[in-house]
Amino acid sequence: MIRWNELTLQQQQGALMRPALSASKNVEVAVNDIIEQVALNGDSALITFAEKFDKRSNVRLQVPQKEIDNSVKVLSTELKVAIETAYNNIKTFHQAQLPNSTSLETTPGVLCELRYQAIDAVGLYVPGGSAPLPSSVLMQGVCAQLSGAKTVVLATPVNGDKKIDPAILYAAKLCGITTVIESGGAGAIAAMAFGTETVPKVSKVFGPGNSYVTMAKQILSQSQPGFAIDMPAGPSEVLVIADERANPEFIAADLLSQAEHGRDSQVILLCNNTLVIEKTQQAIETQLALLPRADIARAAMQNSSLILVESIEQAFAVSAEYGPEHLILQLGEPEQYLPLVNNAGSVFVGDYTPESAGDYASGTNHVLPTYGYSKVYSSLNLLDFFRTYTVQTISKQGLKALSSAILPLAEAEGLDAHAYAVKVRLEQLTND
Amino acid sequence: MIRWNELTLQQQQGALMRPALSASKNVEVAVNDIIEQVALNGDSALITFAEKFDKRSNVRLQVPQKEIDNSVKVLSTELKVAIETAYNNIKTFHQAQLPNSTSLETTPGVLCELRYQAIDAVGLYVPGGSAPLPSSVLMQGVCAQLSGAKTVVLATPVNGDKKIDPAILYAAKLCGITTVIESGGAGAIAAMAFGTETVPKVSKVFGPGNSYVTMAKQILSQSQPGFAIDMPAGPSEVLVIADERANPEFIAADLLSQAEHGRDSQVILLCNNTLVIEKTQQAIETQLALLPRADIARAAMQNSSLILVESIEQAFAVSAEYGPEHLILQLGEPEQYLPLVNNAGSVFVGDYTPESAGDYASGTNHVLPTYGYSKVYSSLNLLDFFRTYTVQTISKQGLKALSSAILPLAEAEGLDAHAYAVKVRLEQLTND
Repeated sequence: MIRWNELTLQQQQGALMRPALSASKNVEVAVNDIIEQVALNGDSALITFAEKFDKRSNVRLQVPQKEIDNSVKVLSTELKVAIETAYNNIKTFHQAQLPNSTSLETTPGVLCELRYQAIDAVGLYVPGGSAPLPSSVLMQGVCAQLSGAKTVVLATPVNGDKKIDPAILYAAKLCGITTVIESGGAGAIAAMAFGTETVPKVSKVFGPGNSYVTMAKQILSQSQPGFAIDMPAGPSEVLVIADERANPEFIAADLLSQAEHGRDSQVILLCNNTLVIEKTQQAIETQLALLPRADIARAAMQNSSLILVESIEQAFAVSAEYGPEHLILQLGEPEQYLPLVNNAGSVFVGDYTPESAGDYASGTNHVLPTYGYSKVYSSLNLLDFFRTYTVQTISKQGLKALSSAILPLAEAEGLDAHAYAVKVRLEQLTND
Repeated sequence: MIRWNELTLQQQQGALMRPALSASKNVEVAVNDIIEQVALNGDSALITFAEKFDKRSNVRLQVPQKEIDNSVKVLSTELKVAIETAYNNIKTFHQAQLPNSTSLETTPGVLCELRYQAIDAVGLYVPGGSAPLPSSVLMQGVCAQLSGAKTVVLATPVNGDKKIDPAILYAAKLCGITTVIESGGAGAIAAMAFGTETVPKVSKVFGPGNSYVTMAKQILSQSQPGFAIDMPAGPSEVLVIADERANPEFIAADLLSQAEHGRDSQVILLCNNTLVIEKTQQAIETQLALLPRADIARAAMQNSSLILVESIEQAFAVSAEYGPEHLILQLGEPEQYLPLVNNAGSVFVGDYTPESAGDYASGTNHVLPTYGYSKVYSSLNLLDFFRTYTVQTISKQGLKALSSAILPLAEAEGLDAHAYAVKVRLEQLTND
């Protein structure tokens, strides 16, 4: 237990320090090589990578439509319903984010509009690993579906000679995705950035991934004009603010459900009560003993801090400085504290709002800025699948009125052709 | 004149090719050195750079408030009114973009919200060069003001021993900016990313700049967690679509008002009429003869193409492929073609809507994605000064209802602690 007020400023900064990201030079070299091979050899490079990295034989790149359609038949009813419920809630929440154009006259005869255009072609990446991640399909796929993007590509690795998981396919089916590519890692990202014989070229790639995926997204978004990514990536993290009446079992469970994500996950508790912190420590040990991923969670707990604060207000100040991906408020009357929230990716309000609700099914998006990026980046939302552009329509009278602003500014900025483009039109008006 | 339909696919791609960006290794090395010096030496590094690059003596970093306040006194009435008119129009258009939270129940007892938070601290960069750019202050400053950002820093270089231009200061004053820093280039960007004794640290930097500024923005946004930039930069460009009734003098003036921006600017005309193209060519020559920046404009015209298309519909297809920063429609009944617009930064509709209207005073923002980035990036808008985050508040009943979705998904994904965070709460409910 750390007592916040007994720390020096430097120690306080140390307590909130995130584990260093070790994007090694090796990863960069390997990823650049993968990118080059995909650019040169397209599909055949992807097949080679699937054999090499995913240990597959008879590699198939695209899932047949029939397999997507039939996926529901091999799911348990329980999982089918769970995926449908999550899909519906995520869709309801994101549908409410559909944007409206803005249109107004700034000056009589000067109509200005802000319009939205769905990004034409998007790529959704779902990492592999020890278990399939249908929730990751839903979080990205619902947005792509609602945006009306013309091309939607889902790429995910499949390990060994297993079949692609039907839960992934059923989530894709609900989202109307027809292009599912069995390819992962940096190769899959490069394939979506360049396009290959099988993989359509996209303008923006979404989704989490390992250090190779992250590096590929970073390199390609910097080097390929017209190719963008959702947001920078970092390890997952949670910060819990709890008061004297909070339930230590709940706190421990929330901390561990973050810690089990990965060894580099970070969890922080800010609490104003010594006893609650001590009981949370005990509950963590008890719950860890029962946890299949205890090794991972225990490693993550090494990066983590249970901190005694003087007041709940102080806790919010510390949280704003840290900028957590997930912020859980186990407080009596938590709503009164919402105005103090700053720099959080997603906020979980009250004792009965665990992080796992938002990870799966409340309706909010679980793709969130982490590693301090929540000071400036947004949680994934529907607008990330759109771009805005402006339209102006100016009448003859409107241009006359604006000219008294345009001409002196163009002159001040030494841009005579800018001024002339107005003058030549005003002359024409005089001649008319 | 290029006849589009007589080109091979490869020649068509060549005709739309943008000039290569030469971000040289030298620039990268120099910028990394500048960043390091600012990180180490703060203000004193900025002073050294102002002496070296801007040829200043007695360098002052911060403009006194009194000088900002008094700037209006030394402006001509004409320029004062122009700045005020532009400010008002830009403010009117961007005020209409102020975001509203979304709040709804996705399931009874499951309240989900999308909220907006102004980015706390923003930096606005205005390049120096041969003339001051008050319009660049307004485009960025109005957004910062409307967002309510707590810290707003404006940085701009001042050449030689001139005073900072009062038009810059008056534009800043209208936008409520009190921190104006006389520093430019990569050093100014680094100062805003790190903070120095004089320069407040910011989370996001906006604005155009030369290759050093662009490189500094790119390096720092990749290496400093929690530091972001507005959008990738590229040379400016315009694409005009004109029909047989368009006025060649207007077309020429619009092409040249883009070409005078810089030698690397690109201008493209798509027209369905040979005669109009020929007359435009003549008008360009005539207008060039009168242009002070004719050298620059002439160089830019080398990268440029006047293209004969078969139909206006074909012109829109070519434009969508190119993705122009500015798209000007000199068409009869242009509104009917707006549904065909794709991948443009800002659209100028009709014969009396020159690009310079949007550059200065119509109300739309002139910070736009260029170099093909308009396929995926937005024109600068008020939301770029905000971030979104989500909030969920779940009741006991709400959690019960959601659990049938959360538990099977957590199990399918092998995340037991995620499931336990729900189960421990359901147990408590049973015990209650």
